[in-house]
Amino acid sequence: MAIVALIALAVAAVLVREVLAASQGTERMRDIARAVQEGASAYLTRQFRTLALFVVLIPFLLYLLPADSTGVAVGRSVFFVVGAVFSALTGFVGMWLAVRGNVRVAAAARESGEKVAMRIAFRTGGVAGMITVGLGLLGAAIVVIVYGGEAPAVLEGFGFGAALLAMFMRVGGGIFTKAADVGADLVGKVEQGIPEDDPRNAATIADNVGDNVGDCAGMAADLFESYAVMLVASLILGKVAFGTEGLVFPLVVPMIGVLTAIIGIFTTAPRKGDRNGMAAINRGFFISAAISAILVAVAAYLYLPSSFSALSGVDPQIAAITSDPRLIAIGAVLIGLVLASAIQILTGYFTETNRRPVRDIGESARTGPATVILSGISVGLESAVYSALVIGAAVYGAFLLGFGNVTIALFAVALAGTGLLTTVGVIVSMDTFGPVSDNAQGIAEMSGDVEGEGARVLTSLDAVGNTTKAITKGIAIATAVLAATALFGAFRTAIETQLASASQGVKDALGSFATFNLSVDSPNVLVGLVVGAAVVFMFSGLAIMAVGRAAGRVVFEVREQFRTKPGIMAGTELPDYGRVVDICTRDSLRELATPGLLAVLTPIAVGFALGYPSLGAFLAGAIACGTLMAVFLANSGGAWDNAKKLVEDGHHGGKGSDAHEATIIGDTVGDPFKDTAGPAINPLLKVMNLVALLIAPAVVIYADNVALRTGIALVAVVIVVGAVVVSKRRSASISPTEENHVDRTREPVGS
Amino acid sequence: MAIVALIALAVAAVLVREVLAASQGTERMRDIARAVQEGASAYLTRQFRTLALFVVLIPFLLYLLPADSTGVAVGRSVFFVVGAVFSALTGFVGMWLAVRGNVRVAAAARESGEKVAMRIAFRTGGVAGMITVGLGLLGAAIVVIVYGGEAPAVLEGFGFGAALLAMFMRVGGGIFTKAADVGADLVGKVEQGIPEDDPRNAATIADNVGDNVGDCAGMAADLFESYAVMLVASLILGKVAFGTEGLVFPLVVPMIGVLTAIIGIFTTAPRKGDRNGMAAINRGFFISAAISAILVAVAAYLYLPSSFSALSGVDPQIAAITSDPRLIAIGAVLIGLVLASAIQILTGYFTETNRRPVRDIGESARTGPATVILSGISVGLESAVYSALVIGAAVYGAFLLGFGNVTIALFAVALAGTGLLTTVGVIVSMDTFGPVSDNAQGIAEMSGDVEGEGARVLTSLDAVGNTTKAITKGIAIATAVLAATALFGAFRTAIETQLASASQGVKDALGSFATFNLSVDSPNVLVGLVVGAAVVFMFSGLAIMAVGRAAGRVVFEVREQFRTKPGIMAGTELPDYGRVVDICTRDSLRELATPGLLAVLTPIAVGFALGYPSLGAFLAGAIACGTLMAVFLANSGGAWDNAKKLVEDGHHGGKGSDAHEATIIGDTVGDPFKDTAGPAINPLLKVMNLVALLIAPAVVIYADNVALRTGIALVAVVIVVGAVVVSKRRSASISPTEENHVDRTREPVGS
Repeated sequence: MAIVALIALAVAAVLVREVLAASQGTERMRDIARAVQEGASAYLTRQFRTLALFVVLIPFLLYLLPADSTGVAVGRSVFFVVGAVFSALTGFVGMWLAVRGNVRVAAAARESGEKVAMRIAFRTGGVAGMITVGLGLLGAAIVVIVYGGEAPAVLEGFGFGAALLAMFMRVGGGIFTKAADVGADLVGKVEQGIPEDDPRNAATIADNVGDNVGDCAGMAADLFESYAVMLVASLILGKVAFGTEGLVFPLVVPMIGVLTAIIGIFTTAPRKGDRNGMAAINRGFFISAAISAILVAVAAYLYLPSSFSALSGVDPQIAAITSDPRLIAIGAVLIGLVLASAIQILTGYFTETNRRPVRDIGESARTGPATVILSGISVGLESAVYSALVIGAAVYGAFLLGFGNVTIALFAVALAGTGLLTTVGVIVSMDTFGPVSDNAQGIAEMSGDVEGEGARVLTSLDAVGNTTKAITKGIAIATAVLAATALFGAFRTAIETQLASASQGVKDALGSFATFNLSVDSPNVLVGLVVGAAVVFMFSGLAIMAVGRAAGRVVFEVREQFRTKPGIMAGTELPDYGRVVDICTRDSLRELATPGLLAVLTPIAVGFALGYPSLGAFLAGAIACGTLMAVFLANSGGAWDNAKKLVEDGHHGGKGSDAHEATIIGDTVGDPFKDTAGPAINPLLKVMNLVALLIAPAVVIYADNVALRTGIALVAVVIVVGAVVVSKRRSASISPTEENHVDRTREPVGS
Repeated sequence: MAIVALIALAVAAVLVREVLAASQGTERMRDIARAVQEGASAYLTRQFRTLALFVVLIPFLLYLLPADSTGVAVGRSVFFVVGAVFSALTGFVGMWLAVRGNVRVAAAARESGEKVAMRIAFRTGGVAGMITVGLGLLGAAIVVIVYGGEAPAVLEGFGFGAALLAMFMRVGGGIFTKAADVGADLVGKVEQGIPEDDPRNAATIADNVGDNVGDCAGMAADLFESYAVMLVASLILGKVAFGTEGLVFPLVVPMIGVLTAIIGIFTTAPRKGDRNGMAAINRGFFISAAISAILVAVAAYLYLPSSFSALSGVDPQIAAITSDPRLIAIGAVLIGLVLASAIQILTGYFTETNRRPVRDIGESARTGPATVILSGISVGLESAVYSALVIGAAVYGAFLLGFGNVTIALFAVALAGTGLLTTVGVIVSMDTFGPVSDNAQGIAEMSGDVEGEGARVLTSLDAVGNTTKAITKGIAIATAVLAATALFGAFRTAIETQLASASQGVKDALGSFATFNLSVDSPNVLVGLVVGAAVVFMFSGLAIMAVGRAAGRVVFEVREQFRTKPGIMAGTELPDYGRVVDICTRDSLRELATPGLLAVLTPIAVGFALGYPSLGAFLAGAIACGTLMAVFLANSGGAWDNAKKLVEDGHHGGKGSDAHEATIIGDTVGDPFKDTAGPAINPLLKVMNLVALLIAPAVVIYADNVALRTGIALVAVVIVVGAVVVSKRRSASISPTEENHVDRTREPVGS
């Protein structure tokens, strides 16, 4: 098991050598690439330093939570750190290579043509994919080998570390990338009328850095975390369903995923007759999915018993179910694979340039930006419904495999998630492909050294990258929902276990909830539901607001540079790129605290103040509303992006027309939707479920200690409210007005 | 009881005479008012003719549903029609007087000054208020007198008729008003640069008609329906908690509301020293709320027993609770009144011009429309959270009054709702005040006959109207949520009753759900939750899309008129106002079908296909997500509207600046948010809960008849999907492209 993990890491090393060996192009290209590399490293280093506080502090808090034994308590804290470090490492290595791959892709497009450029781009992505699955499997393997039957409790720590760090990277990176992007567009495209990636725009380097720290490091950490969390949930539920033997199969499935991902990455190469690069990527994806399906079936017959009753120590209710567990497992994994394909098709329909929804948005551009916004929002809302229904159908399908037994049903949900994640290696590769080719295009544009056929190749790769990014976003959401649902199942198990051994005082305090009950007809459960859904709204609102604030600062900085350095526009003077990178770094690190605290502390406040029924409903509300909101934000953003491309391709007046300006406004609104708030909802759901899982025993044990419960809840509420208030204050102190005030006083000096 | 209802209607008659007796101003003002009157009547007449089909068809379907006796089944169908007719009547009468009051308010401003103008505007609203409470109470009173203990089942029909018609009026009126408004703004303000209500704009009359059919008729029907539905729910739950004696108190509370509303309406008159009209309105509101609170306390001691055990035939579990039911009832009603005040304060904070959120949006206008949209969306998302938490806290507070007994808790929720609704008379008056003063301003502007002091008075009244509209929207949402929650409680009771007498076949089919259980940890309940939340997204998306489509047609029509009649711009030729009214009428009636079918058929599909646990969770998901979405849409829309006003008041460059254009775009996006999709969510929640309540027995009874269940669900799904597909097709056939195509071929003729 650990060996497979090491194989994945070895493959990653091979790929790294291959990518680094490629040509780096002209001097100017190298200079630009170096600026991006430095900016990205500087950001990540500062981010890790900021987050170190959490990584040091939280293990102590974790240790205070009830545990079966001291060994488990220590292990949980230690593996929290391991999970966090692995998550950071995944993001860091993926990004480290991406900022080196980008220039090599640009050089390859210039020197060797599409085939080589595409191979380098996809293999750069492959490294991130291999690291993700390799580290995920390695961590889980070590825990299972060391802790055996006690592994699930320790894995909670591992998953939490991974999820928390991923969330911070997603939120921070998301704010960085969109502050730079929106800021660059507002001044560059809208005010000055200069193209994207024009070297005269002081925000271009920051924009390219952002692609890497957001789309690349953030997404890799996010998928690593989904991977780790799904393993955690399926191991916990596997143990409940089958005893210790249930720990094997959930680990075999991702091992299969590693092998098929390697196959997928190496088979992804353009062939004669492919319409575009997308055909090669799709082939790689479907080949690895098909191989996964076959191998999972074989593994089920090798590693699962033929009936539930063949195992000892199994819940008699479960043992009574006569269905073949091997068939259930195969069915569940297949549901996961089918779900991945369905999401791929749906996302494509709603965001591709040549389909109806995007064409409709393009048409609405003829009546101005307001109708573009309205049609994009309605397309997003509608598409969210279909995606949510498909994900819901997958959950329901897995549930039916439980034949009425909730434990088996939840185990099936977890296995469906594991099935979905057998494709994660390829997915991460596909996703990293996006920022790498985007950056390659940016470096080519800024250096001015790639022309003719080379430029065409890069534009085509960039378009493919946009599609792969949209698709992986959809699949990441599906993964997150299944992982969160499985974790929710684990939460249920934790509460039930604790209720079974509750003291009389606790039972009295719980009243009619002394036996497990999350029935939504009780108003307190209903209130939990509302609060859970509300957190999703709050989190999205905060993330969007943060981007708006940071982008405002970028706009004022770039405007200021244009004014104080008149040579920039003429091309005789270089803008100060570093200052914009600096603003983005500082602001995104400052802004990530509030949403982060919200995610960690709200479940604590709800759980201790209102009890476990409200906490359970809170999780359910967050999952239901979060699924819809995440898809809505991702798809409306994607659709606006492509509606802009549609107009740029010459429809409705083409570049420079009023319709073009209207779609640029739509795209700008969509940027924080699809790249900041939307994707950050994935780790949010998992972090909240993990926090709930971790505090579950304490919530039940202290049910009769009103003073302690109220105290903890109060502290949590005070910190969250304080963070929100502070972030509002900050918004006042750095608001454009004051900034502009500074501008005005500076003007005499500059002019 | 019926007498109090008749008193309310008599007061309405007195107010009508008073309003009609006032001066109608100049000839030109009367002409314009007549055009608005004709347009509004034509629309409502056509709408009622369209809806007649439903009113004829549905009683037959209702009759087929299981009932305790044939009498009840017949009564349910008959009172469905009564509810629908009353709902229509409320909307119609309110609107009939509003389109007559508007010109009289304008005339009064011209001839007699602020005090008289304001009195006429508020008394015009008062009629709608009195009709709402009068008809609501009358309907419920008749049912209770005729059917006694069987009243609740018949009242379900009454509530359903009221809710269904209100939903159609809300959706249809909402699409009409915003299609006209958005269309008028896009061509008038944005393209031609002419002010609002300029008579050269062909869409102005339609815009004024829209204010009446949407804000006025729609809102009155909506609040009438909340009123009726809340009565239904509290009577059903009252009977469960106290037996037949429980039917009295829930009827006494709204009677008190009628009396205090009369007092409120007659005490609303500007006094010396008031800062503006808002002070008088607030005084009227708080006086009536305070009187309500005192009278409710008196009524509780008169009409409620001193302990639960004093009643015969009461659930022994309930009887065991020793708390004084009179105190519980008073507490619950007070919670409702406090909630109304809290919502009023919160909505004010997030949408008033001089508060932080709107000021922030105004500042973001300096970096263009994209940042205006982003900041408005984040403000809306955030405000939704606070409102949802306040409403959630009210539900939880009422729940605590149940002292652990779910039935009493739900009864308390219903009483809190009734408490909130004691203010409904004043609320409807406040709300109708909005379109009346908006229209008065429009008539004055178009006629050009009101100048100087009179114009100032009307502008000030219009501003007050905007605030009252925003506040009543917030309270309408709170009302809808409490009504939906209470109905949800009634649904629970219905299912439990049915489960108690279920056959063995049904019990076997239900398995672990044979005893009532909506625990969200079962995946099928979780799926129900997701579907419920998804319907809210779908419904909002459809409504926004419908406005976009209809507005597009208005834009092309107005552009066409400007081109083919060059005399319009010069003022020598009159535009054809009727054609725009016609387009709005036709489109809104066509567009309301799909969201309507979605609301009615989704609970049927979920209930019969997936069973009662999924149906229950579906309702809970819809309530949780719907609360947030409704507030989000209402408040972001309101904030954008006032951000525009802020800029128009001279901030950030004032009228005509880039910032002004950016806020106009924000306002246009906000229009369908706050006046179409947002408010339509209220009746949506209640319609879905009522459908679920009506089909509840059938869902349980046919649990073991898979063929029948699947058949019904399939029919429902096919109709909904068909409606969605048809509405997409239609979007293609009337899309701007083709329309513009027509334009282009016509051009040679016109020029």
